[in-house]
Amino acid sequence: MSPKHSGRRRFLKEGSAALAGLAVESVRSASGQTLGSEKSEAPFKETRAYGERSRFENSARWPLKPEHITPATNPQVVYAPSMTPLQDLIGIITPSGLHYQVGPILSTPKPDLDPRQHRLLIHGLVDRPLILTMEELKRLPSVSRIHFLECGANSSPAYRNNLEFHNTAQQQHGHTSCSEWTGVPLSLLLQEAGVQKGASWVVSEGAEPARRNKSMPLEKAMDDVIVAYGQNGEAVRPEQGYPVRLVVPGWVGVYNTKWLRRIKLVDQPYMVRDDSVKYTTLLPDGKSRWFRFEHGPKSVITYPSGGHRLPGPGFYEIRGLAWSGGGYVKRVEISFDGGRSWKDAPIQDPVHRFAHSRFRLPWTWNGEEVVIQSRCTDERGESQPTIAEVRKLCGDDPDKWQLSEVGSFNGVQPWRINRDGSVDNAMFS
Amino acid sequence: MSPKHSGRRRFLKEGSAALAGLAVESVRSASGQTLGSEKSEAPFKETRAYGERSRFENSARWPLKPEHITPATNPQVVYAPSMTPLQDLIGIITPSGLHYQVGPILSTPKPDLDPRQHRLLIHGLVDRPLILTMEELKRLPSVSRIHFLECGANSSPAYRNNLEFHNTAQQQHGHTSCSEWTGVPLSLLLQEAGVQKGASWVVSEGAEPARRNKSMPLEKAMDDVIVAYGQNGEAVRPEQGYPVRLVVPGWVGVYNTKWLRRIKLVDQPYMVRDDSVKYTTLLPDGKSRWFRFEHGPKSVITYPSGGHRLPGPGFYEIRGLAWSGGGYVKRVEISFDGGRSWKDAPIQDPVHRFAHSRFRLPWTWNGEEVVIQSRCTDERGESQPTIAEVRKLCGDDPDKWQLSEVGSFNGVQPWRINRDGSVDNAMFS
Repeated sequence: MSPKHSGRRRFLKEGSAALAGLAVESVRSASGQTLGSEKSEAPFKETRAYGERSRFENSARWPLKPEHITPATNPQVVYAPSMTPLQDLIGIITPSGLHYQVGPILSTPKPDLDPRQHRLLIHGLVDRPLILTMEELKRLPSVSRIHFLECGANSSPAYRNNLEFHNTAQQQHGHTSCSEWTGVPLSLLLQEAGVQKGASWVVSEGAEPARRNKSMPLEKAMDDVIVAYGQNGEAVRPEQGYPVRLVVPGWVGVYNTKWLRRIKLVDQPYMVRDDSVKYTTLLPDGKSRWFRFEHGPKSVITYPSGGHRLPGPGFYEIRGLAWSGGGYVKRVEISFDGGRSWKDAPIQDPVHRFAHSRFRLPWTWNGEEVVIQSRCTDERGESQPTIAEVRKLCGDDPDKWQLSEVGSFNGVQPWRINRDGSVDNAMFS
Repeated sequence: MSPKHSGRRRFLKEGSAALAGLAVESVRSASGQTLGSEKSEAPFKETRAYGERSRFENSARWPLKPEHITPATNPQVVYAPSMTPLQDLIGIITPSGLHYQVGPILSTPKPDLDPRQHRLLIHGLVDRPLILTMEELKRLPSVSRIHFLECGANSSPAYRNNLEFHNTAQQQHGHTSCSEWTGVPLSLLLQEAGVQKGASWVVSEGAEPARRNKSMPLEKAMDDVIVAYGQNGEAVRPEQGYPVRLVVPGWVGVYNTKWLRRIKLVDQPYMVRDDSVKYTTLLPDGKSRWFRFEHGPKSVITYPSGGHRLPGPGFYEIRGLAWSGGGYVKRVEISFDGGRSWKDAPIQDPVHRFAHSRFRLPWTWNGEEVVIQSRCTDERGESQPTIAEVRKLCGDDPDKWQLSEVGSFNGVQPWRINRDGSVDNAMFS
């Protein structure tokens, strides 16, 4: 055993084979004088009052090209890079430049709102209708919370369209992101306006040309909803609703109205377009199911994941994200044997409620084909079903894998690591 | 009392005058149809794979112009926008584009390192010297932590140079920022290399042309130091040390070596340039004080702060940031009467260790001149001294307000709100 290998072993408390595959270069010099490329020391061409990322970094939202979406099946598609590259994320914060956008089908074009002109109206069943400027809104008591957002259709096997473009964590699950959101509690604005007896629902509306809107029960509006003007320490980004949006913790994306212009207190669900025409489920008896609220528990291993290629057997740190519309993530387990046994993966402290939570587990790959998958359990005790359980419930056709709700799918994500180190999406095979 | 005013009062549980100055526009319409500028709905000209902020946002690092720095007193100054606009931040995360840079005097030009070429060397008193590529480093077990960084000279009254340019929170305190950092614990790399008996210090060195370096006791290196390649969910930004840097929680900036290329285990402080020529204090007896480690407790009210102008008497939410090199922020108090009495300001949960922490306090301004100031107490029980206490300790000359260490100053920051609503830095008057 060379000194190199006995040292490597220390990365893990268990198993001497653990780090055999960690292809650290052998030591070439102990002086340090040969390190650091002299060529790389060209100074910045300019100083920057607002910094940018390195020219060597190219992580991007997806799809990147129109051919990655399917105009044949969705003729109204307007091209927009929309999905977050989950496999590139580190930590729990999604860089604002990589935050997902609402899918390409809806809400384009997006508005370019001047915050000095923008107004927020609170009206309907209230004692004192209000119109607020952004400046006025920002003077009110505020909160900052780290929360995930997620499209209701994220991860849905029924939307896979073209499997060639559904191999990566980004392609399968990239309609979710996590930010620190800052703004005024909606409850405070509603108390200020004076909620009238009989009001039981709230309708929110955006200022984009499509005027998307959504009904939400008053109980949630008075609970933890934020009228947010801040994202990761600065103004909400244009694609995320600049200058102000709703953040509805744990609930599916459509409730989180962007470019927020209006909140109306009403006495029943208003059956606006996104309550009735969109976001409903046709049931076998011909009736429609309306209103879906919070996301279920969910997780995805982001490394290794579809599209990665492991350089060889040896030590790896399995990394991933878990979240739930049910509140805190309480447990994440990982299976290496098709779901027969599960091993707890430590979750990074502090865990934030309704936020992406980071899990990590040291692991040694022996070079054989293996399927890895993670399972999240939230504070309500709910867990993700495995694909085997989904097949029992819904049958073998992924088009029918809707777990009780509109496009809702929180089945366990399996990744297959092949003997050549390539990694594939094993959800459909 | 109009309905408008009775409603306003609900923003606060105390005091009916609280919101008298909140200049909310009167209601013009309850239909919502007149809201939202039609002019503002021009679509984005292009879709973006990596998003940017709104064209209406212009928060920037400072100084913006060469005349804002003082070449007469610092002839070696090289211009660079460097200070974070603390007064514009919301939440606890500093947007990466606004993270402070090391002061304009040192470390320019900055390197433009190719991560495929970059290497990290661990050598000196170790059993197995190591050279790691970035790819190898990223495969190792990692952590993500939210930590502040701060220049050792931040806030120093002795560096005020030109009072005209030291009126704002940014100008007085902007050499601090807070990010989610991701990377490999330095302790793990040192264990892997095998620390030899007799090793007691660590020297780190950057790959910039200036080759800045610093000695640090092994005890800290083995505790909580991160070899960080991630900042706020993506790669460390070029100005912050791309592709890899040290993050030394709670310790002054100079230890947090950027563009990290080398770590050497040694048996004593190595008295490299930043140990000896820079970052020392000349004492009255002609000797020098070497090595300053962690920051003291600190806080700054960011709203209202120098340069703001309050539109009139009425309700305001006082907002600010507190942090400490001693660990958690335990308490923040605010005084409105020159430090005679103090009122606790709630700190936002969860509080992160060695991180900017956000405090907020509802307040009603009666329109009279008033000085507001905040005081932080950390988990060790240490508190900031008021300027009155600083004057007792150090005398009336701000040039001598060095609280025991090199450029170290954590005195309470007072802001004066004048009757016209303008706000000034009251530290020096």
